Amino acid sequence: MIVTEQQQRALNWFATLRDRLCLAFEAIEDEAGIPYAGMPPGRFTRKTWQRPDVSGDGGGGTMALMQGRVFEKVGVNVSSVHGTFHQEFAKAMPGAGEEGQFWAAGISLVAHMRSPLVPAVHMNTRHIVTTLHWFGGGADMTPIFPDEADTTDFHTALQAACDASDPTYYPRFKEWCDRYFFLPHRNEARGIGGIFYDNLDTGDWEADFAFTRAVGEALLDVYPRIVRRHMNRPWTEDQRQVQLVKRGRYVEFNLLYDRGTTFGLKTGGNIEAILMSLPPLAAWT
Amino acid sequence: MIVTEQQQRALNWFATLRDRLCLAFEAIEDEAGIPYAGMPPGRFTRKTWQRPDVSGDGGGGTMALMQGRVFEKVGVNVSSVHGTFHQEFAKAMPGAGEEGQFWAAGISLVAHMRSPLVPAVHMNTRHIVTTLHWFGGGADMTPIFPDEADTTDFHTALQAACDASDPTYYPRFKEWCDRYFFLPHRNEARGIGGIFYDNLDTGDWEADFAFTRAVGEALLDVYPRIVRRHMNRPWTEDQRQVQLVKRGRYVEFNLLYDRGTTFGLKTGGNIEAILMSLPPLAAWT
Repeated sequence: MIVTEQQQRALNWFATLRDRLCLAFEAIEDEAGIPYAGMPPGRFTRKTWQRPDVSGDGGGGTMALMQGRVFEKVGVNVSSVHGTFHQEFAKAMPGAGEEGQFWAAGISLVAHMRSPLVPAVHMNTRHIVTTLHWFGGGADMTPIFPDEADTTDFHTALQAACDASDPTYYPRFKEWCDRYFFLPHRNEARGIGGIFYDNLDTGDWEADFAFTRAVGEALLDVYPRIVRRHMNRPWTEDQRQVQLVKRGRYVEFNLLYDRGTTFGLKTGGNIEAILMSLPPLAAWT
Repeated sequence: MIVTEQQQRALNWFATLRDRLCLAFEAIEDEAGIPYAGMPPGRFTRKTWQRPDVSGDGGGGTMALMQGRVFEKVGVNVSSVHGTFHQEFAKAMPGAGEEGQFWAAGISLVAHMRSPLVPAVHMNTRHIVTTLHWFGGGADMTPIFPDEADTTDFHTALQAACDASDPTYYPRFKEWCDRYFFLPHRNEARGIGGIFYDNLDTGDWEADFAFTRAVGEALLDVYPRIVRRHMNRPWTEDQRQVQLVKRGRYVEFNLLYDRGTTFGLKTGGNIEAILMSLPPLAAWT
């Protein structure tokens, strides 16, 4: 498998962003106050996995997982895989062509927080290469008790990342996010949204890569601020119960609708990495 | 909608079985010992729901739900619905014909127990009428720490119910159950199995109805015995954690694979009734 300089740069970025996210989250673990007294600050542990290397398929990834005190469970996966799509998927994959060959790399982050006053967050960006090449991803936030300042800050950060590239991005990608992270059987949104994009290829690879980096930078800037704003506020058992039920909805979305999850499960991906997004604890009434 | 005497008898049976199950489970709540001290015995509450009565579609059901002390969450649903299948489902439904008309009634039970030493259980039987008519259903058990005596008793009770009707039933329906309640992405079974059957129409409606009743009677006999055997044994926090993780697998199965769940969600069934099978609390590591 020949990896171009562009592919290598994308992969390096995903790994660098992962390292910076892990450091930022570990710093928050160290700062945690009264509600976390008696619990040690969490640290990420890393675990690598490999795809079975058969008939040209291969690659793998690294899961960084922390079960901490502020971050009850947070996973940051970086993966780089290549191979041949099975025929049924090749049809759905732009440019996969007759041979169905692909290369894909990306970063995926999901954080479930101990305090019900701190929103959960999800971010994923990826670069995919077939006979075509494109970027995709997004970021969205799931507060249990939505806070106007958080919502504004989160959307503002993502809008700034979008606007730096193209003023049409934000309205389109925000609407796409609202449409995607929706539970039709509940007729309710997963959270307060954010942005979602896919198949982004403007013809200017450098610009598209810069936009993808900007999404990661935005998350890295805004989310720790939101966490710090609420993490040391005391919470009640009733609020915790509301959080666990909200997490149940998160499980429903991921197992019933999320394309990444169902795609991964059906193509024999790494189970631990695919299901790292599931919350540490969830309730149904 | 004209309901035949046979359909009425099936429906009466499902309601009678529900009443007997609820009484049996409430009796267990009253008997609970030391580990449940300070918790009041649970009682079922019932809630009815109706399908929107448009263009000949209608019916509804009653959910009986208990969040007790031995039974952390147990639901017993009885429903009776009729109408017209959407075209895509009509194709998959034997005898639905051009007009896609159907009548369906059934009982569904799922029990998640507080003690990790007491198995969870599921039972469902149903009678469906299109231009054809048949019975379907089954029962299966999900221990957290399998116990040989429980497993033997559970299988023996279901085998006796099968053998009274037809000696070929048990081996076929047991294998069907093992095949159905399996999580391919984990390469693991949901529990220790039981029986599963569908499209049962031998041409002798009375015999098929008798078999369906026998499955219900078997569950009503064997499961309370297994619950009483273990419910008052003390358990540890570690065992509880193993239980919560096992329940996560139950959630995965129900949302990813269970035909009843995905069928219900996609046809706009009653959400509360469909998702009553989900555990009160579940964990992912």
